[in-house]
Amino acid sequence: MTKTIRVDLGERSYDVHVGPGLLELVGPSASQTDRVSSAVVITDSNVGPLYADAVMRSLKAAGVRAALIDFPAGEQHKTLDTLGRILNELFSIVPAVDRRTLVIPLGGGVAGDMGGFAAAVALRGMRFLQVPTSLLADVDASVGGKTAVDHAAGKNLIGAFHQPSGVLIDVEALQTLPAEQLRSGLAECVKHAFIRDASLLEYIEQNADAISACQGEVMTELIARNVAIKSDVVAEDERESGVRAHLNFGHTVGHAIETAEGYGGMTHGQGVALGMIANCEMARLRGTIDGSLVDRLTHVLRSLGLATTWANLDAGQLWELMQHDKKTMGGKVRMILPTQLGAVEIVEDTDARQVADAITRIQGKDAS
Amino acid sequence: MTKTIRVDLGERSYDVHVGPGLLELVGPSASQTDRVSSAVVITDSNVGPLYADAVMRSLKAAGVRAALIDFPAGEQHKTLDTLGRILNELFSIVPAVDRRTLVIPLGGGVAGDMGGFAAAVALRGMRFLQVPTSLLADVDASVGGKTAVDHAAGKNLIGAFHQPSGVLIDVEALQTLPAEQLRSGLAECVKHAFIRDASLLEYIEQNADAISACQGEVMTELIARNVAIKSDVVAEDERESGVRAHLNFGHTVGHAIETAEGYGGMTHGQGVALGMIANCEMARLRGTIDGSLVDRLTHVLRSLGLATTWANLDAGQLWELMQHDKKTMGGKVRMILPTQLGAVEIVEDTDARQVADAITRIQGKDAS
Repeated sequence: MTKTIRVDLGERSYDVHVGPGLLELVGPSASQTDRVSSAVVITDSNVGPLYADAVMRSLKAAGVRAALIDFPAGEQHKTLDTLGRILNELFSIVPAVDRRTLVIPLGGGVAGDMGGFAAAVALRGMRFLQVPTSLLADVDASVGGKTAVDHAAGKNLIGAFHQPSGVLIDVEALQTLPAEQLRSGLAECVKHAFIRDASLLEYIEQNADAISACQGEVMTELIARNVAIKSDVVAEDERESGVRAHLNFGHTVGHAIETAEGYGGMTHGQGVALGMIANCEMARLRGTIDGSLVDRLTHVLRSLGLATTWANLDAGQLWELMQHDKKTMGGKVRMILPTQLGAVEIVEDTDARQVADAITRIQGKDAS
Repeated sequence: MTKTIRVDLGERSYDVHVGPGLLELVGPSASQTDRVSSAVVITDSNVGPLYADAVMRSLKAAGVRAALIDFPAGEQHKTLDTLGRILNELFSIVPAVDRRTLVIPLGGGVAGDMGGFAAAVALRGMRFLQVPTSLLADVDASVGGKTAVDHAAGKNLIGAFHQPSGVLIDVEALQTLPAEQLRSGLAECVKHAFIRDASLLEYIEQNADAISACQGEVMTELIARNVAIKSDVVAEDERESGVRAHLNFGHTVGHAIETAEGYGGMTHGQGVALGMIANCEMARLRGTIDGSLVDRLTHVLRSLGLATTWANLDAGQLWELMQHDKKTMGGKVRMILPTQLGAVEIVEDTDARQVADAITRIQGKDAS
């Protein structure tokens, strides 16, 4: 069973396909893309050994000449330096790549961000077919056209909006995903439910075990519903000037916690999970929602194996970090706070004290 | 007298202002840009000493907090490495830049390309106010949103389409422009006339002396008319999939000659001048135009001080280089050939022999 979601962005619209065995469709999909003469698969040293052969075989079988570029796995390699090395390899391919060459980023968020950004700037923009292999990349990075590398001053500070020509999500690839990476993606699924779709939260709550076990049909449904939510938001606000900000629920606090822990000290989703609880707690303290919603969020995150408290958080340091978030404008920290299940609001009048009070909720040992 | 041309690109539309003394308007223009909180001027070591002080003073007087970043002048510094250094400086500015910060590239084509590309990728896209100071940048790079850096494999291979929020062209800045850089820009003016506007060619022919002397009123008129032509073409075809290709008249051959001479061995406009003569000659040999048009082109270029022949050109080498031009698709070399004064066509069936015959025309000593 394959599900298809249309991302509606006018002349930049594209389809996201979700289902089992889609890695084998990379070749046919590339060969059917308008005016494609060749392809370049960009992957990292984690995913390459697992899936590059299958993808290259699929391209060859479809008659698409393809080259493979890989780079060292890990967020610490998502840099302008690595971009430079990838471009050096790209421009030394013979025969030379041109505007009919399709770039195929294969892997998790880092491979997608790196490969997508390389496609965004090489020849001032090459088309690309996104093939995500992690749940986080499936439900988040694969829709919206955000590509980027990190800078010492912050994550994703250097990048571009560049929409793919298509996305193929093979749910079978999740079988090789480390458990903590699966959980990281699940935090984003809970986020989508919380900001936009109460029924999705119920689906996650009812299928928590099947989800944790990566059962194929359930994952296809889960991913397709998440892609549809993200797709709706992005279609409404491609350049992130309005409603797309809702997707940052949990992220302002979460990014700060991730940064405080150091790159690699915590998965992105784990940071977002803690950030969402903090944001819910802030809304409760402001009187917008009642405590049962905070409890429900905490419970579902825990049922998916995510930590809901974290030791040694320093509220003052986190507030300082939030003020340097790249989405902070004119010094005002922007928070996305729930108003009820499935709806959020943008709040700009929070302060260090409110954040400190909320951090208390996720501070210390997980007692329950 | 200031002239204003609207570049019509939907929600990415902007105005280009041309006239004397516009450097003093950078501050007021920045402060009037919607939601601007601060500015960063990016310039190079040639232009910085001449105009950075005036621009920074103008920003300060208008109440806009501004930082200055400069980098070494010269095409050899238009690289990903220099971009990295500029971004390092950008992200170390205190208080931190954010999406309300306006980037102001100040200088010729290299400063515009570097500063514009930095703006394109920093924070996934910052707004920028383009302040070109060379004639080539005034009439070419300032309209169309092309930004890029070079790669060892070719010029402008890494970049982005990123439209400015406005352009200020101060014709007085041309007073400090080296003569060969002025001539380089004039070649592009002749190009615009040839592909689109016979009356502009007459204007250039009639005012060749005033133009070579950089007389203010004439330069304002000349630049405004060229910006209007480029603006029309770009509005019709922002992403260069159709008519924008006409702007490459003279460029396929010209780029090859520039590359053969080595970066810095010839100005861009000089390469284009020779390329245009070669393209005209090809059209004459194909029977599309008669010899008088080739003579007229040669005459106007010479009256502006441009060389119309060049020693030691190797037609075989040039053909080889053309096949690696980044606009070449599927191995087919694309040429823009005139069909009459003010009109061109896209031709893809040229071959090494036709190019060699045309190169003969610009080969050897300038006899006349």
